[in-house]
Amino acid sequence: MSQTETSNSYPTSARNQVKRRHDRGFYDHETVHRILDSSMLCHVSYVIDGQPYCTPTFFWREGTKLYWHGSSASRMLRSQTKGERVCLTVAHLDSLVLARCGFNHSADYRAVMAFGTAYLVTDAQEKERAVVAMVDRFFPDRTAGLRASNTQEIKATSFIAMEIEEASAKVRAKGVADDDEDYELPIYAERIPVRTVLGAPEPCPRLLDGVSRPATLNGYSEGRLLEDALRDAYFVEYPNG
Amino acid sequence: MSQTETSNSYPTSARNQVKRRHDRGFYDHETVHRILDSSMLCHVSYVIDGQPYCTPTFFWREGTKLYWHGSSASRMLRSQTKGERVCLTVAHLDSLVLARCGFNHSADYRAVMAFGTAYLVTDAQEKERAVVAMVDRFFPDRTAGLRASNTQEIKATSFIAMEIEEASAKVRAKGVADDDEDYELPIYAERIPVRTVLGAPEPCPRLLDGVSRPATLNGYSEGRLLEDALRDAYFVEYPNG
Repeated sequence: MSQTETSNSYPTSARNQVKRRHDRGFYDHETVHRILDSSMLCHVSYVIDGQPYCTPTFFWREGTKLYWHGSSASRMLRSQTKGERVCLTVAHLDSLVLARCGFNHSADYRAVMAFGTAYLVTDAQEKERAVVAMVDRFFPDRTAGLRASNTQEIKATSFIAMEIEEASAKVRAKGVADDDEDYELPIYAERIPVRTVLGAPEPCPRLLDGVSRPATLNGYSEGRLLEDALRDAYFVEYPNG
Repeated sequence: MSQTETSNSYPTSARNQVKRRHDRGFYDHETVHRILDSSMLCHVSYVIDGQPYCTPTFFWREGTKLYWHGSSASRMLRSQTKGERVCLTVAHLDSLVLARCGFNHSADYRAVMAFGTAYLVTDAQEKERAVVAMVDRFFPDRTAGLRASNTQEIKATSFIAMEIEEASAKVRAKGVADDDEDYELPIYAERIPVRTVLGAPEPCPRLLDGVSRPATLNGYSEGRLLEDALRDAYFVEYPNG
């Protein structure tokens, strides 16, 4: 534990300290968790025989633990069952920034890198909780209305968990930022917002008569930001954050 | 080179072969490049002292080479200058899929993992080309109208390149896919499309009088898919793909 750790922030080390652009770095739980909980998709890095891999996958948070899952036969998951080091990253692209010179072209973004040691969830209760959370964290209370998971499905699925040992958030949110003297130049500059939004839900064409969309999915409505829907859903399932 | 390589596809190996869900795997240049060229953001995995890192960054493609850049002082870039193995991944989330049981919950997506050995661009001509491409690949012909990059800026920036040695694309695009018998159950299922779109451009508040948006940015218009704007821009700068 470094001297800068508090009960509400992650410890910093050579690994996770934002080295350049210190003003963009955050380590407090609130900032880190908010960026994580606004996403369903992460990228997990891990090493097999010296070769790094970067696999996009779904994940969720429970306190200071992160979970992801997949087929027990997957190369990624098999490589993460024996206490391997991993880095789990989430990035939100918020805008494209067009400046008055090439090197000030940039983007507004929010990103988190979280470091830890992956382990295979083998505890029966923890796995049971994960089977529910992998759905209900995104779609509150949905599992109760689904066909129950069978033994074969549960056996064929591995859940990997990682206690966040270190994490950092990096945020840029300032649009165009040119060198002082460049503002005198007759050059066009702008910020183009980027948003990830939900389209109109497409009901399965094979729904039985009389089956309609449950109110618990109301948060997933056309035109809404994906991140807002995800964060609202998070707090329904984990009211204490 | 494996037997399955052709002049229009990447070789397969234990590293990049899509092991599960073979029907989702593609290795042809057209599919792989289309997914890459539809994105500005990638995640690069690399290893420092046994610890994997996963860094989100911008990138672009030139033929079968990928480029990214950053401060010469950055930990990531310094670690990639000596012929290190890297994996560069791009993922597009196309929909959330809510099925009739937990384990059939899924997503439609398009992802590419590209493997290779990173090198620092030191060749003067290659670096000169990269200084232009890092802007013009996204915003065609923009560099010509900008304040020219100065020696200090160029010196302070490292460009990293990687010849794609192996790559695979993985695509799911089928919406709800339940077990046959589950379609008989009175359970709601749907596909929720997800799209990353451009907002209304926000001109820099400090533009000089008479400076207006150049027509070359017309592709970046409000409501458009980011990936469409990016792919169109790519073909303006690299008409031969």
